[in-house]
Amino acid sequence: MTVTPRRLTPLDVRLACRAGNWDAASTAGVCAGHVQANLIVLPAKYAADFRALCARNPVPCPLLGETVAPGDPSLPARLAKDCDVRTDAPAYNVFVGGKLVATKSNILDEWQDDSIAFLIGCSFSFEAALAAGGLTPRQIEISRNVPMYKTSVPLSAAGVFSGRMVVSMRPYLPSQVERARDLTRPFVGAHGEPVAWGAEGAAALGIDDALGERPDFGEASEVREGEVPVYWGCGVTPANVVMDSKLPECIMGHAPGHMLVLDMRDEEVCV
Amino acid sequence: MTVTPRRLTPLDVRLACRAGNWDAASTAGVCAGHVQANLIVLPAKYAADFRALCARNPVPCPLLGETVAPGDPSLPARLAKDCDVRTDAPAYNVFVGGKLVATKSNILDEWQDDSIAFLIGCSFSFEAALAAGGLTPRQIEISRNVPMYKTSVPLSAAGVFSGRMVVSMRPYLPSQVERARDLTRPFVGAHGEPVAWGAEGAAALGIDDALGERPDFGEASEVREGEVPVYWGCGVTPANVVMDSKLPECIMGHAPGHMLVLDMRDEEVCV
Repeated sequence: MTVTPRRLTPLDVRLACRAGNWDAASTAGVCAGHVQANLIVLPAKYAADFRALCARNPVPCPLLGETVAPGDPSLPARLAKDCDVRTDAPAYNVFVGGKLVATKSNILDEWQDDSIAFLIGCSFSFEAALAAGGLTPRQIEISRNVPMYKTSVPLSAAGVFSGRMVVSMRPYLPSQVERARDLTRPFVGAHGEPVAWGAEGAAALGIDDALGERPDFGEASEVREGEVPVYWGCGVTPANVVMDSKLPECIMGHAPGHMLVLDMRDEEVCV
Repeated sequence: MTVTPRRLTPLDVRLACRAGNWDAASTAGVCAGHVQANLIVLPAKYAADFRALCARNPVPCPLLGETVAPGDPSLPARLAKDCDVRTDAPAYNVFVGGKLVATKSNILDEWQDDSIAFLIGCSFSFEAALAAGGLTPRQIEISRNVPMYKTSVPLSAAGVFSGRMVVSMRPYLPSQVERARDLTRPFVGAHGEPVAWGAEGAAALGIDDALGERPDFGEASEVREGEVPVYWGCGVTPANVVMDSKLPECIMGHAPGHMLVLDMRDEEVCV
């Protein structure tokens, strides 16, 4: 018999982060059922372009929401109550001119009067549905991070932002692909159904790694005998685009694997 | 002094089409200021997948709306009043299994109890803005159709639908590109700002036709000394995807250049 620890609420996690009492290796599996979000903080002058980037490329960049006003680090209640985006994620990366300059436990010093934080959906939201449907993602089975690839697919440009789509990969048998598509299709705020799959899909995306051994981000996976790679849009895309744009100002984001845990539930990102 | 003919209203055009009294070569320039829409008619069983295709790929597939209920050929009033989509476009193409089987002046015989018509935005809506901004599109200047290209860019798959983005091309001087972007950016229901431009953009889209001489659809244009090609998402994309999906049922669309003229005004497709 296993002992279940007291289940943490999203607010518990955020308050622990805020107090500097959170030291888990990642947020994977934390507060199952609640949305974990990618975080990107930009000066307000880029906000319209960033919203347009997301609106024009909703599959890799599903915008869940943003802070309530420039300089105010709180979120709309439908996302998270009593949340300060400067302190409530476990770890932050700070970039200047597209270069990582620091990893910090909060961004109180970096946050400006005109800062706006944007929250982007994450595939964690649909992975429980895959598992519940008998299609547990391989990287969960083998306790690794999901493999991610930079594709050759250009995003539709938006103001100062342009770049390429990043995708995550989970291997399945060809006979399982339609079910994987059906299970993830409703999660429109978390990339939805796969963008492409199989050898033809890999070629269309410009990915040459049939066995899942050489991802650009995350960790190698195992594409086993008879399986094909299945590719979903990935929330690393907008962060990658923002870094590639080499904005001169200081830009902040969550540190990989250390997402902001929202009150919002996974089913709320579904149609 | 030129004589201005009585200006036709969109309803005048639709009623003329319905009565079989419309024989213009195309709808280009007709009812300036009103939206002309791409039309695609599908069986209701594909409607959810088609809506998802548009939601996931809004730049090439800006869905303006659809008929009010399966089998009912009328449109919501915000699009067009007293409109019968079976008769009110100047000409229709009929496809079975992805093959063109007929071009007709109405689709009264083909329309089914479960037919739904979808309306997709068109770049006509932003071309007046380009012209008013001093950037008259080349193909208008030389009285041709806009050149269009099949790209190598995969759309994000949606149910039964997958395929590649189609773009339209208008050449500009590099110094004019930012203004062309700014002028078209607001037209989110009509493809918005360009997706890519210049030699780098052409390469990203998989287009090898620097002078605009060999488009896949439409007519050749003229990319003049010092100019670069600028590419916008194109409403031919969803029709192309639907045809490529080779659905066994009868599918209908407007005949190229013979768009459905709506009451909706161009500014209503803007943010």
